[in-house]
Amino acid sequence: MSVARKLIEDHLVTGTMTPGEEIALRVDQTLTQDATGTLVMQELESLGLDRARTEASVQYVDHNLLQADEKNAEDHAFLRSACRKYGLWFSKPGNGVSHPTHMQRFGRPGRTMVGSDSHTCAAGSLGMLAIGVGGLEVAMAIAGEPLYLRMPRIWGVRLTGRLPDWVSAKDVVLEMLRRHGVKGGLNRIIEYHGPGLDTLTAMDRHVIANMGAELGATTTVFPSDGAVRDFLRAEDREEDFTESLPDGGYDVEDEIDLSTVEPLIARPSSPDNVVPVREVAGTGVGQVVIGSSANPGLRDFAIAAAMVRGRQTRDAVSFDVNPSSRQIFADLTKMGATLDLIGAGARIHQAGCMGCIGMGQAPAVGHNSLRTFPRNFPGRSGTKEDRVWLCSPETATAAALTGVITDPRDLGIDYPRVTLPEHSSVNTDMLVPPLPPEEAAHETLAKGPNISSLPDFPELPDRMEAPVLLKVGDNVSTDEISPAGARSLPFRSNVPKLAEFTYTQIDEDYPRRARETAEGHFLVGGDNYGQGSSREHAAITPRYLGLHAVLAKSFARIHWQNLANFGILALEFENPDDYDRIDPGDVLSLEGLREQLPSGPELTVHNTTKNEDYHLRHRFSQRQVEAVLAGGRIPLLART
Amino acid sequence: MSVARKLIEDHLVTGTMTPGEEIALRVDQTLTQDATGTLVMQELESLGLDRARTEASVQYVDHNLLQADEKNAEDHAFLRSACRKYGLWFSKPGNGVSHPTHMQRFGRPGRTMVGSDSHTCAAGSLGMLAIGVGGLEVAMAIAGEPLYLRMPRIWGVRLTGRLPDWVSAKDVVLEMLRRHGVKGGLNRIIEYHGPGLDTLTAMDRHVIANMGAELGATTTVFPSDGAVRDFLRAEDREEDFTESLPDGGYDVEDEIDLSTVEPLIARPSSPDNVVPVREVAGTGVGQVVIGSSANPGLRDFAIAAAMVRGRQTRDAVSFDVNPSSRQIFADLTKMGATLDLIGAGARIHQAGCMGCIGMGQAPAVGHNSLRTFPRNFPGRSGTKEDRVWLCSPETATAAALTGVITDPRDLGIDYPRVTLPEHSSVNTDMLVPPLPPEEAAHETLAKGPNISSLPDFPELPDRMEAPVLLKVGDNVSTDEISPAGARSLPFRSNVPKLAEFTYTQIDEDYPRRARETAEGHFLVGGDNYGQGSSREHAAITPRYLGLHAVLAKSFARIHWQNLANFGILALEFENPDDYDRIDPGDVLSLEGLREQLPSGPELTVHNTTKNEDYHLRHRFSQRQVEAVLAGGRIPLLART
Repeated sequence: MSVARKLIEDHLVTGTMTPGEEIALRVDQTLTQDATGTLVMQELESLGLDRARTEASVQYVDHNLLQADEKNAEDHAFLRSACRKYGLWFSKPGNGVSHPTHMQRFGRPGRTMVGSDSHTCAAGSLGMLAIGVGGLEVAMAIAGEPLYLRMPRIWGVRLTGRLPDWVSAKDVVLEMLRRHGVKGGLNRIIEYHGPGLDTLTAMDRHVIANMGAELGATTTVFPSDGAVRDFLRAEDREEDFTESLPDGGYDVEDEIDLSTVEPLIARPSSPDNVVPVREVAGTGVGQVVIGSSANPGLRDFAIAAAMVRGRQTRDAVSFDVNPSSRQIFADLTKMGATLDLIGAGARIHQAGCMGCIGMGQAPAVGHNSLRTFPRNFPGRSGTKEDRVWLCSPETATAAALTGVITDPRDLGIDYPRVTLPEHSSVNTDMLVPPLPPEEAAHETLAKGPNISSLPDFPELPDRMEAPVLLKVGDNVSTDEISPAGARSLPFRSNVPKLAEFTYTQIDEDYPRRARETAEGHFLVGGDNYGQGSSREHAAITPRYLGLHAVLAKSFARIHWQNLANFGILALEFENPDDYDRIDPGDVLSLEGLREQLPSGPELTVHNTTKNEDYHLRHRFSQRQVEAVLAGGRIPLLART
Repeated sequence: MSVARKLIEDHLVTGTMTPGEEIALRVDQTLTQDATGTLVMQELESLGLDRARTEASVQYVDHNLLQADEKNAEDHAFLRSACRKYGLWFSKPGNGVSHPTHMQRFGRPGRTMVGSDSHTCAAGSLGMLAIGVGGLEVAMAIAGEPLYLRMPRIWGVRLTGRLPDWVSAKDVVLEMLRRHGVKGGLNRIIEYHGPGLDTLTAMDRHVIANMGAELGATTTVFPSDGAVRDFLRAEDREEDFTESLPDGGYDVEDEIDLSTVEPLIARPSSPDNVVPVREVAGTGVGQVVIGSSANPGLRDFAIAAAMVRGRQTRDAVSFDVNPSSRQIFADLTKMGATLDLIGAGARIHQAGCMGCIGMGQAPAVGHNSLRTFPRNFPGRSGTKEDRVWLCSPETATAAALTGVITDPRDLGIDYPRVTLPEHSSVNTDMLVPPLPPEEAAHETLAKGPNISSLPDFPELPDRMEAPVLLKVGDNVSTDEISPAGARSLPFRSNVPKLAEFTYTQIDEDYPRRARETAEGHFLVGGDNYGQGSSREHAAITPRYLGLHAVLAKSFARIHWQNLANFGILALEFENPDDYDRIDPGDVLSLEGLREQLPSGPELTVHNTTKNEDYHLRHRFSQRQVEAVLAGGRIPLLART
């Protein structure tokens, strides 16, 4: 059996492991970050939770760190108080990015985890089943409820050979994206196996598992083998190791010979616009950023530092370095790598996500920015017409030294061999443990003026007749629905304010039109609608503005769940060509929903403007249908 | 003769050294930072400059580093191109705060400098005459013109004794502010002398000279003695040393026995709200920030690091550390201090001004923030109702360890003796030298979409009749006129956009009323109007909105010059009680200006609403009167 199926079997509460069937899984751990976590805490408040039921639930503060005004700091104080009240761990601002920090301190082979961050899957590097979901799924898990999902197919990717010099784990996942694109992993768990694994450390695997999110996969899983044991030993946690090795049983198979992988780069503005670096060599570069959960390991920074040691980055290039955790920053400093980076002109930033989520580091218009990040969706950097490229630390650093995109093999310097310390600088002082229950009982939520409660949403009407206010293309990401960036992120705890940013990257006028359309509205989307970040804000804020239903060719998994959780119909065209028949402004109607939805997946949508009918279907389970009819899962719970 | 008078005598172009008389001084060096420098470069463009005429003109990038969108990065690219075109040095983002960096690399005893930053006076620590002025004064100096100013009085402050343990230079300048307030230094140069100097390093003196700006002084001067030689030797520049010791000749005298100084703290929200730390001990603290040009030295960070070594900061406190320059960050790292800070939970930020100018690090409402910064004017932190306190690194760090305001003497730990390296980590690679003239000739200005040119202003009308749109109290700072902070700072290169922020901290509606008042308007202010930052935006944006004249009890020096430079009348009440007779909305009239202004300082303002007359006077020189009549210095130059 594959490692993924073993993990599922060990945690199965209901359902059978038949691809496509809804299953329920017991959840051992949860992860939240601040940009999504403030809503999760508001959901715990709405649910009336007394205390977390999980083995470990950890609230990180890694996204909203700039504090351009009081709102970020108020969120931090609110999250700290919620952790104290509900029995969660609190990771202080500056402690680091959730994914590497969680891996270092809490990750355990054989465990399940849900996280309100799409890159939660990175924990698959330790042989965990870790799934990025909407915030409400995490809130339910914290409350002890199982996770519901459709059983994915298991996609075995056999690795052979060994990566050449100057090629690293990032290039492996870019190769996957080059081959399969951002939809290649939909409804699949990617499981890497084979002899090539022996040459990849646990942190290398983190890089590959992390960006499984960009393939659209449910998650990525690696076996728990000697490399995992080595990692846990370095973290003083060898006792948390348990072995788990696969024994075949894949639904789909693929293979990568690591020795044939070359330096790759994703061009603007999609992670799957992948080309060999040599194909775009010589392109001018204005910024290079090293960091994020996609290249979070000590090695990723140490190789950059070794490359620039005694050299200077170009004066027209801003060389930004975001240590991914305080522990890694400490190790880098001990190794002398911090000093090398400073000497070469690096701007070293506090440990956190920073520019990856558009929290600062926005590039100038027309300037190419090379980043070791996982995503380059349009505008995610904070610059509307940005030109962001994704690559390995080696490729990024080469550009910082030359000022142009450069295959690191052509840099003309010796490949630096980096020796990492056997033991990490373990320091848990910025991880505040849960309060004892008797103290937690006295804790109140610290709500600053910018922190709202969850809005109440009414139940689904039986009949809808409303216009299409926006029609978008394929692969629209949640970054485009509810933008990242320093302008909007501070309102993540305030749904009414945040709603004003909804879809403004694509259509600045959408929030106004939506507010003024009292009868509600529809959206029409293409394939893979709602890919990317797990933020449930991308469902809640359009709902707040009156969204009834999204008609799309297909949906990305997390956003689809979020739509159901907040009472929005997610409908797929039976005939994708019908997408072309609907224009913005067309008035659509749907009737008899309260009877039709529970009785089957088919629905007919009438276009009253064009007097046409379209056949659509929902893929909701009976459980989800109940939630949608009730106006979402929280109103449903409130009623029962 | 005092060191200050010697410096003036050596650079005197016109005038005599009689207090109050206008003198003109030759300028050796200039300093600009990015938040004011983009306008300076636009002024050089308006002036049609070919090449800088100074010994060294250096453009720093230290303020606008967050890059929440493309505007900061576009400013950086614009500044780099302007440096290449006009023959200036360019200090890359991340190289550090202008004042300590300039001191380390360019500061030379006996030289004069003007800088478009009010803390330019910090260079007085090396025996320079360094004066913060508006951007246009700097542009003129770069073009080879002398600096015009009224000869100040020289205020000799004799230092005796030695600072006790736990008391440092910051406490000395806080003692000055406690005694004399934010207007205490108006029209004065503060010159420190006496045996107490032997115990203060050049960087300690930087702390004291820097915050001379908060006393309202024209500048601060220290002698050039052995401590300055030691400093220059550590910077590998001993050859730049020349001795300059005072020999009396002070207009005013004062004395501080250093052995009696105790830990002091400025309460919210003025630098002169100074009390002993023990008086406010026990007050809860949510944030501590170490950094800025007010405490920029290696020692200031090293003492903080030594205090937290092996300890942990409180979980409710955010402990932010802003290294002031890349060189200091490198030295801190070599010393092991960076590692100590990381271990104790510090959030370490890129080298720059950061929170000092409200570029991030804004505290939560109601949370006390202790900062080693120079200023705590209301809202400057980025939080509208902030509670910012100013203190030494010792006092700030003590609060990070205890979570409450704590006199460091009461912390119960041994006073750490910090040993600094004899030689600094000198690295000039982030300082880009001026291009050779033949290359500079081919350079064009890189103007991104957000970078405007200077607006054209018409000449002063002979007759004005217009309403008072706003009346403010004493000590209004330029932070209140043209706000700092991450929202508005990115528009510093764009006068029309920035104008929308004018005075919004005090009256959100002022820009709209001003735009809608076609006949222009007046402002009424109290004492020390326009104190604080040198930003000429505080003159230009109200002018852009139609401001004709400010009637005030008195003006702060730099803002008064800026008003003249941009064609705004600065009028002082002969009878301060007349301030109380004017109400917002009153319509004032002034007649025969083109004849009256050149003929004498007296003017009569008629209040047509109340049918009253007020006697006011301007303090402009004949040179300034010509500029004001022409609509400002640039229109005047364009005409001649």
